[in-house]
Amino acid sequence: MPPGQQVRWWAAHALLPDGPATGVTFTVADGRFTDVTPGTAPGEATELPGVVLPGLADAHSHAFHRALRGRTHHRAGAGSFWTWRDQMYALAGRLDPGSLLGLARAAFAERALAGVTSVGEFHYLHHDPDGRPYADPNAMGHALALAASEAGIRLTLLDACYLAGGLGPDGDRPLDGVQRRFSDGTAEAWAARVAALREGPGLRIGVAAHSVRAVPRAALSLVAGAAAGRPLHVHVSEQPAENAACLAAHGLTPTGLLAEEGLLGPATTAVHATHVTEADIALLGGSGTTVCVCPTTEADLADGVGPARALRDAGCPLALGGDQHGVSDPFTEMRALEMHERLVTGERGRFTPEALLDASTAHAAIGWPGAGRLSPGARADLVAVRLDTPRTAGSDPAQVVLVATGADVDTVVIDGQVVAAGGHHVLGDVGALLQAVIAPLWEDR
Amino acid sequence: MPPGQQVRWWAAHALLPDGPATGVTFTVADGRFTDVTPGTAPGEATELPGVVLPGLADAHSHAFHRALRGRTHHRAGAGSFWTWRDQMYALAGRLDPGSLLGLARAAFAERALAGVTSVGEFHYLHHDPDGRPYADPNAMGHALALAASEAGIRLTLLDACYLAGGLGPDGDRPLDGVQRRFSDGTAEAWAARVAALREGPGLRIGVAAHSVRAVPRAALSLVAGAAAGRPLHVHVSEQPAENAACLAAHGLTPTGLLAEEGLLGPATTAVHATHVTEADIALLGGSGTTVCVCPTTEADLADGVGPARALRDAGCPLALGGDQHGVSDPFTEMRALEMHERLVTGERGRFTPEALLDASTAHAAIGWPGAGRLSPGARADLVAVRLDTPRTAGSDPAQVVLVATGADVDTVVIDGQVVAAGGHHVLGDVGALLQAVIAPLWEDR
Repeated sequence: MPPGQQVRWWAAHALLPDGPATGVTFTVADGRFTDVTPGTAPGEATELPGVVLPGLADAHSHAFHRALRGRTHHRAGAGSFWTWRDQMYALAGRLDPGSLLGLARAAFAERALAGVTSVGEFHYLHHDPDGRPYADPNAMGHALALAASEAGIRLTLLDACYLAGGLGPDGDRPLDGVQRRFSDGTAEAWAARVAALREGPGLRIGVAAHSVRAVPRAALSLVAGAAAGRPLHVHVSEQPAENAACLAAHGLTPTGLLAEEGLLGPATTAVHATHVTEADIALLGGSGTTVCVCPTTEADLADGVGPARALRDAGCPLALGGDQHGVSDPFTEMRALEMHERLVTGERGRFTPEALLDASTAHAAIGWPGAGRLSPGARADLVAVRLDTPRTAGSDPAQVVLVATGADVDTVVIDGQVVAAGGHHVLGDVGALLQAVIAPLWEDR
Repeated sequence: MPPGQQVRWWAAHALLPDGPATGVTFTVADGRFTDVTPGTAPGEATELPGVVLPGLADAHSHAFHRALRGRTHHRAGAGSFWTWRDQMYALAGRLDPGSLLGLARAAFAERALAGVTSVGEFHYLHHDPDGRPYADPNAMGHALALAASEAGIRLTLLDACYLAGGLGPDGDRPLDGVQRRFSDGTAEAWAARVAALREGPGLRIGVAAHSVRAVPRAALSLVAGAAAGRPLHVHVSEQPAENAACLAAHGLTPTGLLAEEGLLGPATTAVHATHVTEADIALLGGSGTTVCVCPTTEADLADGVGPARALRDAGCPLALGGDQHGVSDPFTEMRALEMHERLVTGERGRFTPEALLDASTAHAAIGWPGAGRLSPGARADLVAVRLDTPRTAGSDPAQVVLVATGADVDTVVIDGQVVAAGGHHVLGDVGALLQAVIAPLWEDR
């Protein structure tokens, strides 16, 4: 679209910042809304079906995990997060920049098709299978950036520092096997590599400390310093074993350790926070740290139900993450957030549909504060959800987030560009893209 | 199809009783499989896409609840099962045989399109809004039977005895408001009305005691007698309040009361069994009572996570129910059953994909023991699930039940008849059918 050129869309229903509205015209120029007006007739505008939502944010993604979908459930005997991790590591060992590019492009296209307009990719698969840097030390990160660009989705590359193979009672453990791919050896080397990454249109660079399991205490403050105000993400207390190890090694919970080392605050996102104490909740809330809940992953990996409502009430903005790509559907994540709360509290309406949409539009947590609102000045993202499918027919448009699935998304516009229309991604058949890259990863296994 | 005429379908993948198979030809005559042979080429057979599953059973449905989808979540302040029930009652008060026919036809078509081939309709909306019988006292039941027939789905009409307005510490409460529609006045009058219902092709009659809240103790054994070996269903311990009331009134848990009154056994299905004691689990398992879990409903209504795995281990066959039609997707029910177990146990693989499919093919619990297997002699139900959609691409066909959704179902064959093909129901646009019947129910409200 030429600079300054205006385009208009119109929808019979839209979820505006002030609430549900009807007959809404969206005027867009230079990738931003210049006008959003309800109570209008479509006129010359392009009509969108159903109800229009703001673009959704996936604040926590590991794109390569998409190849594990429907591959980890067939196990004799009980499994756990840790047995799943063994399978994930085996896959991680087989990827290179070329296969990661194809896999991430297809996985990001799948997310975009489901209504995600910004994705935070928590990236730790840095080096070659022996742990040696590629000729371009950021080859893997650059593959992810190119993948997102081709899929038409905004990306925040959260480059993760990963130095230790775990945390035992005697301290940090050495790296083992595929974990060598994750490590830069020292926090300084990690920071130097990250400093070479360049932002661009639709691309932000953020940082991550993988977890207190993978980043020794002495390195944590260096990660915080390298963030320099950019988004800083960290896995926190996904499993009870992490808490136990951290308490044994440091006498602190993971949240307590992060607080001591200066990692909490409004630019920080704690991912999961499933097994946190009352004191942890107060630390996270008091510091304005965002908590990114990943409901379908926390179910799939048997993590448990975290105190999402209590965290929000304590002051934490909430975000949602699709995480392991077992499911790529922000609507399913929103519904699961509320349903898990209902299951453990016996109470309905723990989060209103508006609160769920807030959590699903936490673009700010990954450095895109200008996205996720249907209002003038905001980035021109539109997600049109059909109201006439078997799933959505008969529902109140205001409650669509508790009814729809990603399969009901018709049109996705990101920064004013149409990325999906009629339920099809502009890149083509997303199922075929996925199949083409995933099948070879499982041949002869 | 003329009697005796053979038709053949072929699928690259199928989940046969012995396990996953490839290149499977299904030969069908007179609505039954006459041959199922793996390792074949398609030849002249009609090719089905993806992986073929047996027909799925929805053992617990309240079709009219479909009109509540996306209508009960927008509430200031906390809600509960009981506040939801007020909304459900308000809807129940507005239905008549004509609107119930249209609503149930669309709701059953939605279920069939998602792979359900037998549905157990737990039916208690018997009489007019003042509690007077219609000219045909079974007008509402006949509407449900016609709806299922038109939607191409097998129906078991579980006609529910409902006599009391609740159970207080002083005993049974009088009927209130819309509950008068549910009641025949006495168990004898209920049994006489049910005796007039006739079975037919694709239609079974079963019975239900609504719950120990709605059926006084003295009437329970009469319901068991009226069942006369047919399927007997009963809501059990969906909410802790039911347990408390039953203990106060009778000194027994609901399961204990049902056992005392002779309602447990292999022809009986206990629906929910969410809040059951160790002793209850032993009673249910020891009697071979089926337990029908309704995972998406138990989440939506904040019931909690029941001990499904413990019940199965104790000897209860498991069934799955879509119940309140907040979701109409047997795949989502299968996944939710396993995911809820994972969330509360910290363990993956509580149910294998095969065990989930067993629970989702419990046709016997609603009186169709000849359905739900891809083998000669069984009813010829086929559910073809695409493996090339964004959701399913790249997955192991053997794990499809933990990956797919109802939106991935391409073809559904019931008793040898094609009910859906290419993701479309033979009745037409299911979303439009739903919208046409639901919208008028909410006008001016």
